[in-house]
Amino acid sequence: MPELRKDPIVNRWVIIASERARRPLDAAQWGPPPDPRQSICPFCPGQESRTPPEILAHRPHEGPASRRDAPGWSLRVFPNKFPALIVEGDLDRRGDGVYDRMHGVGAHEVIVETPEHGKTFAQLDEAQMASVFHAMRDRMSDLSRDMRFRYVMIFKNHGRAAGATLTHTHSQLIALPIVPKVVAEEMEGAREYHRWKERCVFCDIWRQEVMERERLVYENGEFVVIEPYAPRFPFETWILPRRHRSTFEDVGRDEMLLLANAMRTALRKLDVALDGAPYNFMLHTSPFPERHNPAYHWHIEIMPTLSQVAGFEWGSGFYINPTPPEEAARYLRDVELTP
Amino acid sequence: MPELRKDPIVNRWVIIASERARRPLDAAQWGPPPDPRQSICPFCPGQESRTPPEILAHRPHEGPASRRDAPGWSLRVFPNKFPALIVEGDLDRRGDGVYDRMHGVGAHEVIVETPEHGKTFAQLDEAQMASVFHAMRDRMSDLSRDMRFRYVMIFKNHGRAAGATLTHTHSQLIALPIVPKVVAEEMEGAREYHRWKERCVFCDIWRQEVMERERLVYENGEFVVIEPYAPRFPFETWILPRRHRSTFEDVGRDEMLLLANAMRTALRKLDVALDGAPYNFMLHTSPFPERHNPAYHWHIEIMPTLSQVAGFEWGSGFYINPTPPEEAARYLRDVELTP
Repeated sequence: MPELRKDPIVNRWVIIASERARRPLDAAQWGPPPDPRQSICPFCPGQESRTPPEILAHRPHEGPASRRDAPGWSLRVFPNKFPALIVEGDLDRRGDGVYDRMHGVGAHEVIVETPEHGKTFAQLDEAQMASVFHAMRDRMSDLSRDMRFRYVMIFKNHGRAAGATLTHTHSQLIALPIVPKVVAEEMEGAREYHRWKERCVFCDIWRQEVMERERLVYENGEFVVIEPYAPRFPFETWILPRRHRSTFEDVGRDEMLLLANAMRTALRKLDVALDGAPYNFMLHTSPFPERHNPAYHWHIEIMPTLSQVAGFEWGSGFYINPTPPEEAARYLRDVELTP
Repeated sequence: MPELRKDPIVNRWVIIASERARRPLDAAQWGPPPDPRQSICPFCPGQESRTPPEILAHRPHEGPASRRDAPGWSLRVFPNKFPALIVEGDLDRRGDGVYDRMHGVGAHEVIVETPEHGKTFAQLDEAQMASVFHAMRDRMSDLSRDMRFRYVMIFKNHGRAAGATLTHTHSQLIALPIVPKVVAEEMEGAREYHRWKERCVFCDIWRQEVMERERLVYENGEFVVIEPYAPRFPFETWILPRRHRSTFEDVGRDEMLLLANAMRTALRKLDVALDGAPYNFMLHTSPFPERHNPAYHWHIEIMPTLSQVAGFEWGSGFYINPTPPEEAARYLRDVELTP
């Protein structure tokens, strides 16, 4: 049974997911055990029986392709076969001397973004990418009704160095009974700014960036793509919606296409600039109990995985970034994309 | 000129060290440019002219080996030839719209821990390792007199995957005009605990660990080596002093040998358990302005670099650890060391 445990000093919750543990070195490599049939991709059409039954799929309404867990889908969501958390049970939150723990209850789902094995996320067309964002929002709305959960983390690992263990393009979703530290910190910081200024810090940021243009990579009617002022990593890239909304759940159908346009442009530019480097992105949204928060503004953060100096940053929480965001933004602006 | 910039949401300072930047991909690889003479190690005796002049060295008091920047030393400290921060100048702290910046003023030094090129830190004998800790403390005391600085970060990258660019064993020291976020958070959390309990959280932790023994790896008269209750990474290991002291500056000569004993035991056990895996360690100590703080307790955190899933943790600040600390501790306790 996985466990959630809290560090008593900095109030950081971590998942201790011991199910996979065998020997120390094996255990240290997180991810599914090797599949002897791995030459056939379990995320491809025709292999549906090798994943848990689907939770959501985009399929035609009629004909053989409308059947659950059968080929014919354009997008498919199912529980992770090797989940970091388990969906059944109570939290059973309790103390343990100075420490805190609870059962590792949560949902862990996989979103397969296209039936085409060879395509990357950046290579999807805008309509297909928009349908991925729709699926993310639908799963978030559904999970928000489970009173045990406070947050849904939606993220993507692209490339082995970024933690992807299967190449067929997919994102992941983890519903949690706690708010991850990085989001709790953002909420806290944004609230403090709002107390002082009576404005949203994210609204102030995108307005300053659109005006100054120095760190601006791309913009459309609804979204602004920037290199942030104090990036932790070279080519760290943020997508900020112009409209103040706390949660991704409230994004409308018309905005989804423009989100896909901004995301696709950002990823394709990064792909050219960084020669197809691995990356992660994570969707930051307000926790379920705070759906309308004047201080917090949902957004997406993209982190290319370029640098080998991981350890130092992990250990210290301190970042040395050799690439000024102004230079990265200029470089990305200059990348010309074929349509 | 490097810059320190603050993220306006979570108040994280980062160093933007642009001096090295050439092309985007080059710039993303932080570290010294390749040295054409790299077959001869610049940290070896006889190569002293290839480093900046020494700041501190352990040498005999007389004879040719007593000469500065000449062979004969057993330990040598000098400024980093490719510093992330520069030591001259004012901070010139100022706003920039919603943002904050200051000049990248600070010290960046290298501590070469032994003249023997082939030795690892874990292979030093206890007396030599103690002398490394003495040198760290001496440099910290010296830098604490510079009123521009608030914190000295002392850390080690061992192995390429942990960020080491030169193999000759060394640690690094960065004096900063700000307190790194990870330390500020610990201070804050420890203060909150102290407000509530009127006890130091670190004192409570080591006492509980010594009593329960489940996560205890090793102990001696002054130090306790544990796997923390909520570790971010497999085999994350902490060294906690039994005596409550806020800053490493106040550690006495007698304690240094026992610190070396605890550190050496921990690193040698990790070396056996993890097959020589790369690691980082960082010394956590109270910022200069708070030398005596009843809530804060200096300590050392060691992070083996085992996992490839860096990106996800970076992006999310959320950690999934497949190795329960109780298993890691049992494994490390069972490692038998030859003396």
